[in-house]
Amino acid sequence: MKPIALIAQFARMVAFYAMLALGGQAFAQADPLPSWNDGAAKQSIVNFVQVTTTQGSPQFVPPDERIATFDQDGTLWVEHPMYSQVMYCLDRVPAVVKAKPELAQVEPFKTVLSGDRAAIAKLTMPDLMKILAATLTGMPVEQFQAEVKAWLAAATDPRWKRPYTELTYQPMQEVLKYLRDNGYKTYIVTGGGQDFVRVYAEQVYGIPPEQVVGTMGGTKYGYDKDGKPFLTKEPKLLLNDNNGGKPQGIHLMIGRRPHAAFGNSPGDQQMLEYTKAGDGARLAMLVLHDDATREYAYGPAQGLPATKVGAFPQTLYDQAQKQGWTVISMKNDWKRIFAFE
Amino acid sequence: MKPIALIAQFARMVAFYAMLALGGQAFAQADPLPSWNDGAAKQSIVNFVQVTTTQGSPQFVPPDERIATFDQDGTLWVEHPMYSQVMYCLDRVPAVVKAKPELAQVEPFKTVLSGDRAAIAKLTMPDLMKILAATLTGMPVEQFQAEVKAWLAAATDPRWKRPYTELTYQPMQEVLKYLRDNGYKTYIVTGGGQDFVRVYAEQVYGIPPEQVVGTMGGTKYGYDKDGKPFLTKEPKLLLNDNNGGKPQGIHLMIGRRPHAAFGNSPGDQQMLEYTKAGDGARLAMLVLHDDATREYAYGPAQGLPATKVGAFPQTLYDQAQKQGWTVISMKNDWKRIFAFE
Repeated sequence: MKPIALIAQFARMVAFYAMLALGGQAFAQADPLPSWNDGAAKQSIVNFVQVTTTQGSPQFVPPDERIATFDQDGTLWVEHPMYSQVMYCLDRVPAVVKAKPELAQVEPFKTVLSGDRAAIAKLTMPDLMKILAATLTGMPVEQFQAEVKAWLAAATDPRWKRPYTELTYQPMQEVLKYLRDNGYKTYIVTGGGQDFVRVYAEQVYGIPPEQVVGTMGGTKYGYDKDGKPFLTKEPKLLLNDNNGGKPQGIHLMIGRRPHAAFGNSPGDQQMLEYTKAGDGARLAMLVLHDDATREYAYGPAQGLPATKVGAFPQTLYDQAQKQGWTVISMKNDWKRIFAFE
Repeated sequence: MKPIALIAQFARMVAFYAMLALGGQAFAQADPLPSWNDGAAKQSIVNFVQVTTTQGSPQFVPPDERIATFDQDGTLWVEHPMYSQVMYCLDRVPAVVKAKPELAQVEPFKTVLSGDRAAIAKLTMPDLMKILAATLTGMPVEQFQAEVKAWLAAATDPRWKRPYTELTYQPMQEVLKYLRDNGYKTYIVTGGGQDFVRVYAEQVYGIPPEQVVGTMGGTKYGYDKDGKPFLTKEPKLLLNDNNGGKPQGIHLMIGRRPHAAFGNSPGDQQMLEYTKAGDGARLAMLVLHDDATREYAYGPAQGLPATKVGAFPQTLYDQAQKQGWTVISMKNDWKRIFAFE
C-alpha cells in the first residue's frame, strides 16, 4: 500500500473510531430511564447500578452474580381487574367442555359457560383450582404452548382494547433493559404459571424461558403411537411460587440470592426480604398502584384510609420503610405508563 | 498530529490488527478437542458444531436455542467405585451422630460408624435414603454449601489419591468449552443432588448454579432469632432427576429441548431420546466405560459377554445404534482421560 493510501485508510479508521467513541459517550449520557420522573425511586435504581457495576467500588458485584428478579402481575404488567392467566383459563372452558361434554352440567364449568360475570366473580378458590387444572394440564407441553399463543394473539383487555402483551409498564421495560445493559441477568419470579409466562416472556420482556420462575407443575414422560417421546402437563403442584415460595423458587431455579428484586404485593414480601438480607448493595422495590386515572389505584395509596387497603396491607409499606425498600409511586414516579401512550 | 506521527501510529495499529487476525486464524485452526483421537465420535461433535453454528447452514440453530445438557457421574467425572455424593453422605455420618448421639445405636448409622466396608456396601436402598436425608437435609442452605466445600477440599479418591474434583474427564471438559465457545449454553443434568453439584460446578466445569439441573429437594422459608430470613433444606423430594425425570427436569429448569445431550447410563436414556426427537440437527452421545486400564470397564464393552453388562444393558447400546446416538469409547476415542496425566 502506498503512503498516501495508508494515510487515507488511517483517516477513515480515525473517523470510524471517533464515531464509536462519540457514540459510546452519547449513549452513556443518554437517560436510560426516560419514562421515569426524577425522584428517589429513579435515583435509587441509577445509584444501585452505578455502585454495583463500577470496578473498584466497595459494592462492586461480579458479573456472574448480577441477578435481578421481577414479579410479573402488577409489577411488569397490568393485573386488574383479573390476572391474564385466569382470563385465559376462563376463555378455554368452552373448548374443554366441547372435548368433554359431560362437564357442561357440572360446576364450576356450568357457571363459566353461562357467561354470568357476577356469578363468575364469586367462584371460590376450590372452583378456580378445578378450572385451572382442567385448562392448564392434561395436554402435551407443545399443545399447551400453541393454545396460549393463539389466545394471546386474539384476546384483548376490556379497558384498553389491546392485547394483554401490550399492557406492560414502559418504565419497568426500561429497568429490565438498563439492568441487562449493565450485565444483570433478569428473571421473572411470578405466582403465575411458569409454562404460561414462558410462552411470551422472551418476545414481550426479552426474558428467555430458562429465566422464568413461576408456579411449577409436574410433567409426565411418555411416548406417542410412533414411539416419539413427549411430556404431558400433570395436575401436580411442585411449587407455589408465592410468598415463601418465591425465595424457594429462586433457590431452586437460580441457586443465588438476587441483588435486586421488584414486586408489588404481599406475595412478593419474602422475595424482597430475602434479597435485601444479602450482603452488600441490594435493591428492593415495591410498585404502588396509586394512579386511578392512568391505571388503577388499589394499594394503600396516600390519603386512602387503612380500611381501603384491602389485600395490600399497610404493614407491607411499613416494612418497606423499616427495611429500606423503595416504593415506586406509579402516579408520581412514572412519566408514562405504557409504550403506546 | 504530524503526518509522520500519523504513519507511525498507523503502523502500530496495522501491527496490532495483523496480530489479532493471525491470532484469530491460529485459534480457528487449533484443534478444539486435542484429547480426542480422530474417529467417528470426535467427528460427530465437530460436524454438529459446524452445521448448527454456520450462518446459512440449513441446520443453523439461533444462539438463544443452543442448549447442551450433560449427565455428570460417569459422563463428566468418575463414578466408580461409588458416587462422590454417596461418599460425602457416608463421611458426614459421624458429625450427624455427634449432634444426635442417640443415632449411634440405630441402623443404618451403626453400620456406617463401624467402618465395615463389606457391611456398608450391602446397605439397602431404604437404608441409603435414611443416610441421605440425615446428611443432606435439615440445615440452612448456606451451612450445607459450606460443609460440602470443606469436604471437597479434604476428601480424595481411593485409587488416584486426588480430590474428586480433579477426576473430571479432560476430553469432556474440552467438549464443554468447545460448545460454549460456539454459543452453546452448557447445563449439567444429573441424578445427583442439585444443591450438591452446584457447590463446585462453576469452579470445576465453568457451569454456574443456574445451569445445574439435578435431583431437587424442597426448602422451607423461615427467620433466625434476629429476624433474618433463611432457607432450610427439607427432606421432601420435588423431582428425581433420573430416567423420565431428566426430560422433566430439563423442561422445568430450561424450558427448551436441548440440541445436544451426553450421558453414559440407563438413567440418561430418556434425555438422549428426548433430545434426539427434536427437529433439525441433534447430537446424542453415550460414554462407554471400556477402559479398565486407565479408568474402569463396566459398560457392555466390546467382547464382554452380555451377562457382564450388569446395570448397563445391551439394549441401551442397541437403541444408540437404532436412533443415531454416537457411542464414545473411552479406550479408543480418548487420547487421555485426566488433565493431570
